Amino acid sequence: MANSKYEYVRNFERDEHLLPNTWIVVRIDGRGFHRFSDHYGFQKPNDVRALDVMNSAARHVVKTLPDIVMAYGVSDEYSFVFHKSTTLFERRNAKLVSTVVSTFTAAYVMFWPRGFFVSAVETETEREKGETKGKKKEMEQQQEQQERDLDVEMIPTFDARAVCYPSWENLRDYLSWRQVDCHINNLYNTTFWALVQRGGMSQTAAEESLKGTLASDKNEILWSRFGINYNNEPEMFRKGSVVFREYALETTTTKTNAGKTENENLPEDEKPVSVSKTQFEKMRKARQKAKIVTAHLDIIKDDFWLVRPWLRSGKPGRPVE
Amino acid sequence: MANSKYEYVRNFERDEHLLPNTWIVVRIDGRGFHRFSDHYGFQKPNDVRALDVMNSAARHVVKTLPDIVMAYGVSDEYSFVFHKSTTLFERRNAKLVSTVVSTFTAAYVMFWPRGFFVSAVETETEREKGETKGKKKEMEQQQEQQERDLDVEMIPTFDARAVCYPSWENLRDYLSWRQVDCHINNLYNTTFWALVQRGGMSQTAAEESLKGTLASDKNEILWSRFGINYNNEPEMFRKGSVVFREYALETTTTKTNAGKTENENLPEDEKPVSVSKTQFEKMRKARQKAKIVTAHLDIIKDDFWLVRPWLRSGKPGRPVE
Amino acid sequence: MANSKYEYVRNFERDEHLLPNTWIVVRIDGRGFHRFSDHYGFQKPNDVRALDVMNSAARHVVKTLPDIVMAYGVSDEYSFVFHKSTTLFERRNAKLVSTVVSTFTAAYVMFWPRGFFVSAVETETEREKGETKGKKKEMEQQQEQQERDLDVEMIPTFDARAVCYPSWENLRDYLSWRQVDCHINNLYNTTFWALVQRGGMSQTAAEESLKGTLASDKNEILWSRFGINYNNEPEMFRKGSVVFREYALETTTTKTNAGKTENENLPEDEKPVSVSKTQFEKMRKARQKAKIVTAHLDIIKDDFWLVRPWLRSGKPGRPVE
Amino acid sequence: MANSKYEYVRNFERDEHLLPNTWIVVRIDGRGFHRFSDHYGFQKPNDVRALDVMNSAARHVVKTLPDIVMAYGVSDEYSFVFHKSTTLFERRNAKLVSTVVSTFTAAYVMFWPRGFFVSAVETETEREKGETKGKKKEMEQQQEQQERDLDVEMIPTFDARAVCYPSWENLRDYLSWRQVDCHINNLYNTTFWALVQRGGMSQTAAEESLKGTLASDKNEILWSRFGINYNNEPEMFRKGSVVFREYALETTTTKTNAGKTENENLPEDEKPVSVSKTQFEKMRKARQKAKIVTAHLDIIKDDFWLVRPWLRSGKPGRPVE
Repeated sequence: MANSKYEYVRNFERDEHLLPNTWIVVRIDGRGFHRFSDHYGFQKPNDVRALDVMNSAARHVVKTLPDIVMAYGVSDEYSFVFHKSTTLFERRNAKLVSTVVSTFTAAYVMFWPRGFFVSAVETETEREKGETKGKKKEMEQQQEQQERDLDVEMIPTFDARAVCYPSWENLRDYLSWRQVDCHINNLYNTTFWALVQRGGMSQTAAEESLKGTLASDKNEILWSRFGINYNNEPEMFRKGSVVFREYALETTTTKTNAGKTENENLPEDEKPVSVSKTQFEKMRKARQKAKIVTAHLDIIKDDFWLVRPWLRSGKPGRPVE
Repeated sequence: MANSKYEYVRNFERDEHLLPNTWIVVRIDGRGFHRFSDHYGFQKPNDVRALDVMNSAARHVVKTLPDIVMAYGVSDEYSFVFHKSTTLFERRNAKLVSTVVSTFTAAYVMFWPRGFFVSAVETETEREKGETKGKKKEMEQQQEQQERDLDVEMIPTFDARAVCYPSWENLRDYLSWRQVDCHINNLYNTTFWALVQRGGMSQTAAEESLKGTLASDKNEILWSRFGINYNNEPEMFRKGSVVFREYALETTTTKTNAGKTENENLPEDEKPVSVSKTQFEKMRKARQKAKIVTAHLDIIKDDFWLVRPWLRSGKPGRPVE
Repeated sequence: MANSKYEYVRNFERDEHLLPNTWIVVRIDGRGFHRFSDHYGFQKPNDVRALDVMNSAARHVVKTLPDIVMAYGVSDEYSFVFHKSTTLFERRNAKLVSTVVSTFTAAYVMFWPRGFFVSAVETETEREKGETKGKKKEMEQQQEQQERDLDVEMIPTFDARAVCYPSWENLRDYLSWRQVDCHINNLYNTTFWALVQRGGMSQTAAEESLKGTLASDKNEILWSRFGINYNNEPEMFRKGSVVFREYALETTTTKTNAGKTENENLPEDEKPVSVSKTQFEKMRKARQKAKIVTAHLDIIKDDFWLVRPWLRSGKPGRPVE
Repeated sequence: MANSKYEYVRNFERDEHLLPNTWIVVRIDGRGFHRFSDHYGFQKPNDVRALDVMNSAARHVVKTLPDIVMAYGVSDEYSFVFHKSTTLFERRNAKLVSTVVSTFTAAYVMFWPRGFFVSAVETETEREKGETKGKKKEMEQQQEQQERDLDVEMIPTFDARAVCYPSWENLRDYLSWRQVDCHINNLYNTTFWALVQRGGMSQTAAEESLKGTLASDKNEILWSRFGINYNNEPEMFRKGSVVFREYALETTTTKTNAGKTENENLPEDEKPVSVSKTQFEKMRKARQKAKIVTAHLDIIKDDFWLVRPWLRSGKPGRPVE
């Protein structure tokens, strides 16, 4: 009973190999997460517990696929960045997309019912913010009571796509685009829910009153009407989450290779640029652990990238002492 | 803080819209399931419990994505067939692939830890096989003892791809290819594990002794050495699993529209072909329930398709009386 | 001096293999042919000489690429149909598109300066239209005086694309789409230029007066104001041109396999359908020559296809007696 | 007679938009040029007349498509480089490929029969090589006698493909790959035909005797047996042809932005690097004409690119004084 008679159908399979030497971003997005978040009673405007599940799932993806140099997530979306030199799965589109989204989904479901919420905030930035952290702890405790298992009728699913970015500048702009989006949405949502939850407005009225407002208007509303200083809101909410492998931070760097420009092959003898004492100390501490880190930092400015050159080079940095 | 400066990165996104009027098959495959099955102690050559999780997950996918007309699964793979007329997600490749694989994965994980194993065998074919079912029950009981939750270190993931088949014949040949593969692999595995488990052979010796053997040789080994009649093995093992929406089976059909030929627009006045009394009775019973069915039937021959014209037409059949 | 250091750039090449078992149409379109036709003083609304160059070039393409079963052209566009079973160039998109457009372009330039205008009308349809042919001859003589070589500053170029059609019905609808377009445009242009050339209207006035008119209105204008019976216009203008390999026409056919339906595998014992004596005689004559034919026929109705089953089957017909 | 019934077929058309911010190379290749060159009696190993037609056609393509920054050709192939910022035809693959190959083909045929052979050598490099040029003239005269028009039976056609290169380095390596290929093939062919034409060997014997030889061996054969110094062979043969728009050459440049590295955004205050007096004089002369230039230069080393920064930047340089 040979199979050869039917095997011709293999000829219908088509593989798209993504262009070499381009940065591959696989972005996953929650499907129907508005309904999903209602169903499980997510806190508004942000649910720490839900974000932690997202972050844990992302960590798991980064851990199991070492070709991923970093991931950036906000709300129910996460972007996974494969280094431009990756040859994983021969860069086949469907294989990359399906593997990332399947691994993420499995991890999300796994981490959900077990009450396993990694503390996504054990990073250098967060450790200094006792205040913020205290606030977050509080939220988590409130939420714990509502914790429940997943219903078969409402299981979390994600879609995904792969996009290629030819240059480092394009990649940086992509990530900046997502983080700006995070900021715009979070400022809006924070104000909107303050008006509803503390201001007693209906959702329609709140929406109406925010039409056409600028960022400064929203900051003003938050402060004058609710005593909220937006800048004191948790960084996870304002900046989203970055997941990456941490090595010894670099203390020496130059103006030239700082930014988004294309000069990758730099002379070896470049002079170090001085960094502030505070920064240096911070870096030293950070070097103490080498692991996958979830942080809530500004990834638009060059600083984040300057001290972590391995993200761009794709080469593992020096192990943390 | 406008986002317009970065939004140009959207231009890098590319959508592949799959060719209209073609059958779309999204096939998912377990990643590293050899190691996975070892880790969780799957029974060899087939683990009813694991197959049931696959089938449950597939049912869930078919249920939540009505554009899927049927699914066919064997071992750790499942093929989901979208009707050629589907316009779901504008037929975007990445969206179809990622949604199917994410939904399947989520369901697989969901159904695993809960001990929720749908009886994949409540179909007309199975209901008559008391013997087979008894055997299966037994297996399930043995396995129940070993049942354990999923380890974070070893979570099930799947990759996936979409393939277009332009004609009904191509689609049928694709499905036949998978079912012939199921048969070839299962006959081999059944013989191999009989040699190892009951014949006391090492795996290497068993492999060696099966080299170059024909199907008839393997049947002979099973019967003469172990008293196993391969044809009495559970149908789920020998034929794989078909998942589809069941409507009232059609009793009238013609020779002409039976097969894989392309004549879709048939004269309305065709004469009914007589069906055996046994078959008719079987069909009558099957009509009694309208639901998503998991069956273990021959899908290579025309019979399966003849009585279920809705699979090809994509139009819901008459509701089951 | 090894080349291996640079050869990695080959990895950037991507081949798109068009889906098997689909009809491939490569359509070429004149680039900037409005300006081109002005430059060379094409007669309006139709220039026999220019259409003949198009048809000659198309014949050449069909002749040199036997995998093309037929071509259909109108104005400055031509569609080349590759049989769904073709494996030419492994069905690579760029190779098919570039070969067709390059061959067409070369032939177009070749046939232009030599005053080589194949008589595109030696077909069964045309041979009976003494009147039409007389008219055409006349036109050609008028044009001959204006004939001139091509300027380097204004050389004819074409762009091209390949499209896949999964079913015979889709292909037929594509060709019908082009022929209906031919009709709509030609009726409009014939009326427009009659108003301008014979009615003394400005082009703007003519355009204005035709706004919102139906086909019947245009027919009426042509007849009542200019004594033109549109149906007597040359068939090449009204129907475009079909280029194909001619074999012995089939006299026997059945209702069932007539049309656009998908029933390709028909019983061998089908009864012949009677054809009118006139038709039969016509066919007999047509059988007398086996060659590449350029005709101006209705390809929307089934008749054209019924008597030329080799166009659909891709198998050469019986040689013309 | 509405066309709407058929217009759905438009949905089958698919456009591939090439990834933004990548260098697009459209490479055309002669189809069956071995037979073609035999048919028209091309001189071996190189036919100046035929190369000139290639170069003239390429010039025409560069002239009519200003988005092309340069072209490089050897033998019967030509590569056209679109700047990475081009948005021509919305970067649609088929449109770019078909337009380039159609324009090239039309020009090739146009330039062939008219005896219009542009002197592809009016460049700074060639003008100094009286000797080489004298040799070339001689060849041209010999060939003139054999000149004949194109046969309809043997018309020149080309296929084409588009490839994207994400970085400047990749593009440079692509072009280097082609030029190294040119060198390897030309050294081989020069030696091979010397053995045959002057050494009286059969082609088989010549092929046999060259098996396994290194570049140095071939140089030695040429010199010792035929008194040929390979380095005195015409540059067009040894280096192929570059076609580009010429602006005022840049005299100041730096080590840093010389090469293939990615540092595009350089500090404005960089110090000029001294160039040799000979070079400077050469540049000065070259600045005297602003036009499309066909040259035969080394494009592997950085020098060619250093003095023509507009090729990389895509911005027109200063007009030639």
